[in-house]
Amino acid sequence: MKVLQERIRQEGLILSDTVLKVDSFLNHQVDTELALQIGQEFKKLFGHQPITKVITIEASGIQFAMATAIALGVPFIYAKKKKAVTLSEAVYSAPVHSFTRQEDYLVSVSQKYLGPNDKVLIVDDFLATGAALVGLVDIVKEAGAELLGVGCVIEKSFQEGRSLLENRGIEVHALARIASMSPGEIHFIDNESSLEKIKESAGC
Amino acid sequence: MKVLQERIRQEGLILSDTVLKVDSFLNHQVDTELALQIGQEFKKLFGHQPITKVITIEASGIQFAMATAIALGVPFIYAKKKKAVTLSEAVYSAPVHSFTRQEDYLVSVSQKYLGPNDKVLIVDDFLATGAALVGLVDIVKEAGAELLGVGCVIEKSFQEGRSLLENRGIEVHALARIASMSPGEIHFIDNESSLEKIKESAGC
Repeated sequence: MKVLQERIRQEGLILSDTVLKVDSFLNHQVDTELALQIGQEFKKLFGHQPITKVITIEASGIQFAMATAIALGVPFIYAKKKKAVTLSEAVYSAPVHSFTRQEDYLVSVSQKYLGPNDKVLIVDDFLATGAALVGLVDIVKEAGAELLGVGCVIEKSFQEGRSLLENRGIEVHALARIASMSPGEIHFIDNESSLEKIKESAGC
Repeated sequence: MKVLQERIRQEGLILSDTVLKVDSFLNHQVDTELALQIGQEFKKLFGHQPITKVITIEASGIQFAMATAIALGVPFIYAKKKKAVTLSEAVYSAPVHSFTRQEDYLVSVSQKYLGPNDKVLIVDDFLATGAALVGLVDIVKEAGAELLGVGCVIEKSFQEGRSLLENRGIEVHALARIASMSPGEIHFIDNESSLEKIKESAGC
């Protein structure tokens, strides 16, 4: 997604070889117009499938799950990061380790809102180690729902997240794939657009 | 907002005189169409003012801040609940006590995204004790920005949140105001619509 890559080049802050801050337009202050475009892009990539629900994890996945759910005309669910007092009924849950915050937490989804009839698209802001996403995948599986794919806004392709998911047979798309980065420098992988060209020429 | 009150009557789970669960359509699973309508409603109530930014607190305010920001055509900011590794620069912050989770936390907003030129609308899912919202109000004040109002989806009018805010001279609107509730029973205050009628007859 060219417009996204440009914004990352212009506004992203690369703090180290692994830490990219995009909080001026994606995950603290949010450019709603760009978020809606991101939703439309996920619709292009996954919308040919009969998705019934979009699922993400609080908090920074919410704006992209919502934009995608708006584009697809379906509800979305955000998994909670710990069991709240008001989330008292039965939940599907999975443990997740956050490398950013160096802490463990539990993600959970109420059993009332996910079941064998659901066809799920998982959406999140970052795909890096894949830890949080694997947690969500486990929850979808536990619910007996069908997972149709995982869409991430930004992928740190130099980390193992994508292979963890693809090794489970999951279709993964990311809108900006970072091959490598260091302060002042960022390189994107372009094969997402190449893939689009291949699909287009094949009449998909 | 009649459609919202109806959904609360149909789907809300009243666990006690103070605890209402709306996680089937508002703050766990989210009905995106209703969320967008809520954004339009806040635009009707506040959109005559020159709002530059909508602000909320992660996580459950995000979908309504986003819907409102979409309606108004401005960006939104979600305050973070604790200082993350990647939120390393200078922040405005305020301490908040959560009565739901019985814990204290810090809400913070990067100083880069809020300043004296901003005219702010605060949006959140619930107005109850007002603790989180007062924290946000303090942050807006600390930034030197102008606060144009507070919009909440659901107000527990039997708690002190509204008076805390109104005593500071803040314009507060809630789309569903609960006068009282107990398992199996809920009563709404209708003066939001009465206020609208008064405004309309006055030509506002």
